[in-house]
Amino acid sequence: KFCDCSVIQVILSAFQQQKEVRLKSSPADLVTETDQQVEKMLISAIRRKYPQHRFIGEESVAAGEAVELTDSPTWIIDPIDGTVNFVHRFPFVAVSIAFTVNKQTEFGIVYSCVEDKLFHAQRGRGAYLNGKPLCVSGQTGDAILCVVVTEIGAERDDLALSTMTSNICRLLRLPVQGVRALGTAAVDMCQVATGGADAYYHIGMHCWDIAASTIIVLEAGGVVMDTDGSEFDMMSRKVIAASSSAVANGIAQVVQAFPCRRDNEAASKRKCDTQSERAVAQPTACVLHEL
Amino acid sequence: KFCDCSVIQVILSAFQQQKEVRLKSSPADLVTETDQQVEKMLISAIRRKYPQHRFIGEESVAAGEAVELTDSPTWIIDPIDGTVNFVHRFPFVAVSIAFTVNKQTEFGIVYSCVEDKLFHAQRGRGAYLNGKPLCVSGQTGDAILCVVVTEIGAERDDLALSTMTSNICRLLRLPVQGVRALGTAAVDMCQVATGGADAYYHIGMHCWDIAASTIIVLEAGGVVMDTDGSEFDMMSRKVIAASSSAVANGIAQVVQAFPCRRDNEAASKRKCDTQSERAVAQPTACVLHEL
Repeated sequence: KFCDCSVIQVILSAFQQQKEVRLKSSPADLVTETDQQVEKMLISAIRRKYPQHRFIGEESVAAGEAVELTDSPTWIIDPIDGTVNFVHRFPFVAVSIAFTVNKQTEFGIVYSCVEDKLFHAQRGRGAYLNGKPLCVSGQTGDAILCVVVTEIGAERDDLALSTMTSNICRLLRLPVQGVRALGTAAVDMCQVATGGADAYYHIGMHCWDIAASTIIVLEAGGVVMDTDGSEFDMMSRKVIAASSSAVANGIAQVVQAFPCRRDNEAASKRKCDTQSERAVAQPTACVLHEL
Repeated sequence: KFCDCSVIQVILSAFQQQKEVRLKSSPADLVTETDQQVEKMLISAIRRKYPQHRFIGEESVAAGEAVELTDSPTWIIDPIDGTVNFVHRFPFVAVSIAFTVNKQTEFGIVYSCVEDKLFHAQRGRGAYLNGKPLCVSGQTGDAILCVVVTEIGAERDDLALSTMTSNICRLLRLPVQGVRALGTAAVDMCQVATGGADAYYHIGMHCWDIAASTIIVLEAGGVVMDTDGSEFDMMSRKVIAASSSAVANGIAQVVQAFPCRRDNEAASKRKCDTQSERAVAQPTACVLHEL
């Protein structure tokens, strides 16, 4: 196994069990005890080593914590990306961890637990899958004949559903060659880094779903942008990741967004943290092995 | 590796290479030299052992052979299910082989080559993934809260696209909990056999895409039916596979079909083969190891 720390053992052992599930924002927005347990394990293990660091964790936010990305060293954590898959035992679930300093992502890790695929990237040092370097596909034309990955996600109101399915329909009319969905944004997006997919787009996901995958795609030579073609904004809940700007722009021309509350909306007017410290002992992308 | 015969070596070695691609019926209906080479390898290896047997192979049909399922022992072969994935190196491609006698499927094999997952089932003897018994999910209610797998497939005319995307939209309104697509009908459908998905439906696929997976789902305790709720017809190009009749009927109530020419339309008026022989040496589901 490429990753066999206690956190992953907890996930894989729970994967096989019957789970108690609670709904969050919609019938497709689920949480289990394991999501919460894994997030607590990760945060407490990291906090022991880096007591000054801040955290943005999916389940902590669900429990009421604000999403506030400051200049301080910050860990952005999705303990189980693909909780619906996890509950149903559909074999794609991932731990996603990104680490930012001065709001810039220093590294990202996505571990697809059942597949045993460890994606990681460190800024300026490339992206890797199980230790082998990754590179995006050679697609540099527009979106025609691309394989595109996307997710419907947890939004289930009429406007979101009709926008998302009509986006798929318009892409297929281009035509793109295929539309795929594995059920985890983090792993979906990493497909672009491997070159297996030419593009990924998503509207309605959260920053913890894609923070780690974003640097993995960038370090594999890809691009990320907002679905409206503007600069990528981790908090905007809209993303296109692609093998090239031309492909990303081709997707942006077709895809329409629906309104989503920004991840940091509630916190946006708060005073920013001014400590802006850099940890003396800088963590690296192999942090999952250390936990 | 659970399967390491020469056929799989050819596929895995070609998977990594740049491929020359030809279009068949649409911009998403592709064929490569490897599809054709693998089908020829499989058919000639089987023919050496079972010279009287008949074949329905995707690429032989594309080359003009009729699709004619008779009472004779017949091998239904998709050499590479997920050719779009294969061309793009999206990591889900499968060899699918079913064996029928008297039009009844005796066994089916689906090998997901990159994942190294060997699904197989023999009539009355259960379904297995890498040697471990499979069982469908416990879902016995209607389709609500199910994980559903489907594919858009190669059909790209307006009616097909709008029907397929509105099917997805209606399912999400039920709501189902998630819609997934791996890009290979054979592997998608096997997810129902594993219990990871509760249902799979598809309109427009061909008999070779699903012949093997059908017996794998049935032997795992699942059901298959036509998308209109009637009896499953391997040649109709419409299928629902599900963990239970209740789930399948729930999908059938929501999903609409678009017109597809039957797989055996051209051959349907031909005289049926009357030899109806049973091979003396009956092949078994471990045939892939013997080739």
